[in-house]
Amino acid sequence: MNIKPLADRVIVAPAAAEEKTKSGIIIPDTAKEKPQRGEIVAVGEGKVSEQGVLVKPQLQVGDQVLYGKYAGTEITVDGQDYLIMRESDIFAVV
Amino acid sequence: MNIKPLADRVIVAPAAAEEKTKSGIIIPDTAKEKPQRGEIVAVGEGKVSEQGVLVKPQLQVGDQVLYGKYAGTEITVDGQDYLIMRESDIFAVV
Amino acid sequence: MNIKPLADRVIVAPAAAEEKTKSGIIIPDTAKEKPQRGEIVAVGEGKVSEQGVLVKPQLQVGDQVLYGKYAGTEITVDGQDYLIMRESDIFAVV
Amino acid sequence: MNIKPLADRVIVAPAAAEEKTKSGIIIPDTAKEKPQRGEIVAVGEGKVSEQGVLVKPQLQVGDQVLYGKYAGTEITVDGQDYLIMRESDIFAVV
Amino acid sequence: MNIKPLADRVIVAPAAAEEKTKSGIIIPDTAKEKPQRGEIVAVGEGKVSEQGVLVKPQLQVGDQVLYGKYAGTEITVDGQDYLIMRESDIFAVV
Amino acid sequence: MNIKPLADRVIVAPAAAEEKTKSGIIIPDTAKEKPQRGEIVAVGEGKVSEQGVLVKPQLQVGDQVLYGKYAGTEITVDGQDYLIMRESDIFAVV
Amino acid sequence: MNIKPLADRVIVAPAAAEEKTKSGIIIPDTAKEKPQRGEIVAVGEGKVSEQGVLVKPQLQVGDQVLYGKYAGTEITVDGQDYLIMRESDIFAVV
Repeated sequence: MNIKPLADRVIVAPAAAEEKTKSGIIIPDTAKEKPQRGEIVAVGEGKVSEQGVLVKPQLQVGDQVLYGKYAGTEITVDGQDYLIMRESDIFAVV
Repeated sequence: MNIKPLADRVIVAPAAAEEKTKSGIIIPDTAKEKPQRGEIVAVGEGKVSEQGVLVKPQLQVGDQVLYGKYAGTEITVDGQDYLIMRESDIFAVV
Repeated sequence: MNIKPLADRVIVAPAAAEEKTKSGIIIPDTAKEKPQRGEIVAVGEGKVSEQGVLVKPQLQVGDQVLYGKYAGTEITVDGQDYLIMRESDIFAVV
Repeated sequence: MNIKPLADRVIVAPAAAEEKTKSGIIIPDTAKEKPQRGEIVAVGEGKVSEQGVLVKPQLQVGDQVLYGKYAGTEITVDGQDYLIMRESDIFAVV
Repeated sequence: MNIKPLADRVIVAPAAAEEKTKSGIIIPDTAKEKPQRGEIVAVGEGKVSEQGVLVKPQLQVGDQVLYGKYAGTEITVDGQDYLIMRESDIFAVV
Repeated sequence: MNIKPLADRVIVAPAAAEEKTKSGIIIPDTAKEKPQRGEIVAVGEGKVSEQGVLVKPQLQVGDQVLYGKYAGTEITVDGQDYLIMRESDIFAVV
Repeated sequence: MNIKPLADRVIVAPAAAEEKTKSGIIIPDTAKEKPQRGEIVAVGEGKVSEQGVLVKPQLQVGDQVLYGKYAGTEITVDGQDYLIMRESDIFAVV
């Protein structure tokens, strides 16, 4: 990916929402829960703090992550939807 | 558990709410008070402060903890419900 | 007490509200003013500041303290009610 | 006084509101303006800052001070009413 | 003046509002705009910052200053009205 | 100008709003857009930070600047209207 | 461009919104989505932090950037519309 997030931001490719419920019923698009799981596809260089210290990101490209339901801003690159958010919006690496 | 919380976050397995009152009456599901007690199942590496200092967590996996009623975000891993929250949301180790 | 508060938190055993008014009249339960006085029964190890400095608590177990009417969170241990709050919620040592 | 305020708090004994107007008319209790002047009767040891620096109080017991109308919390000690507030709530020494 | 403001506070004697308009018409009391100009009559010793640094005031007694319409708290000393405010509420020295 | 702004404040002389539209029609006073461009006529000595560091202003008297529509406080000096604002309210030097 | 943004601000020339939909239909002006992509045309010298440290900008003139829909303030220079915003409003370099 040729997009470089600034500072402490990362770009996440959300995992596709499962289109079947456990009982195997196909659910229509509007009923699908927005995914909270995704893959890191780009990482910023880190945030320069008030002290002039560069705080490096802990995440790496390829990490599978969990994030909040309403985290980030949607961007579209080459017809693909991504989320750009701050590293602090990421809860955990799976 | 193969989930690694980021920064100063921890993952808590909430204790099962007791299904009997003291007098031995079984209470229906909706009347059960949401548990505020649980076990730490994963701990982040700590938060890098503005000064570039890594502030290590005080909690360890296995700690029995008390936390606020509305603390954390629910996540589901292998069909099991957990709460992911910041260490500062934990009140005490029991 | 085998509960260890985290960081800059303390556990307070609220003093029993006096059940008699000065003139000796016994007042019913709902009219009793919620106590603002109590005894420290557990103290955390202190808060690690942004600079990585451990700021130790000034309070000790056994201190009789005054605190705000709405301070803290109620917890129940062995059938006994306590309040867990931050040291900064404590006004004074009596 | 055997009460020790914590951190940057002070205890103030409010000055009695004057019960006569300038023209000598005695005013009933509800019309008296709440006093904004008082005497410092106890001073905390100071606040430990984020840097671990103890910032000592500038006020001393016996100082006559001016403070905001709604500053502090009322406490009663031996039947006497006092106000407990942060030093920053004190405007000036008279 | 024998009042000493605390920390970064100053006491201002507001300039008397001009009682005549430019065209020489005397305006009644309620129409007079509250003055935003005054003279510094007392200055605190400065604010001790989180780092334990004493930040000295830039203002001196006698400075003619401009300040915001709603800045400060009114105090009355010997029948005279003053405003007590933080130095940061002062816009400029005239 | 004999007004000295305090700390990180500057005084701006707003540029006169153009009284003609491009097509040459004279517009009445109420329709004129409030100017967002002006000239710096006075600069403070800078702000003393929490660390006791004097952060000097980047602007100089004579700079033509752009600022937000609602920035600053209006002051009148010798019948002339000025705006006094913080340097951080200035967007750019033209 | 002869405009110099102050501190940590940048000036962005928004990319022209595409006037055709994918199917080739020309859409009227009001239906065009406000662009979130643009080119950096001017960069400030950086922000002086509380510690007196100059935090230099990471962006350069010519960078193609993504920014939030409601970021920045519109300014008009020589009949051309630009956005002036803080560097922290920029999400990523494309």
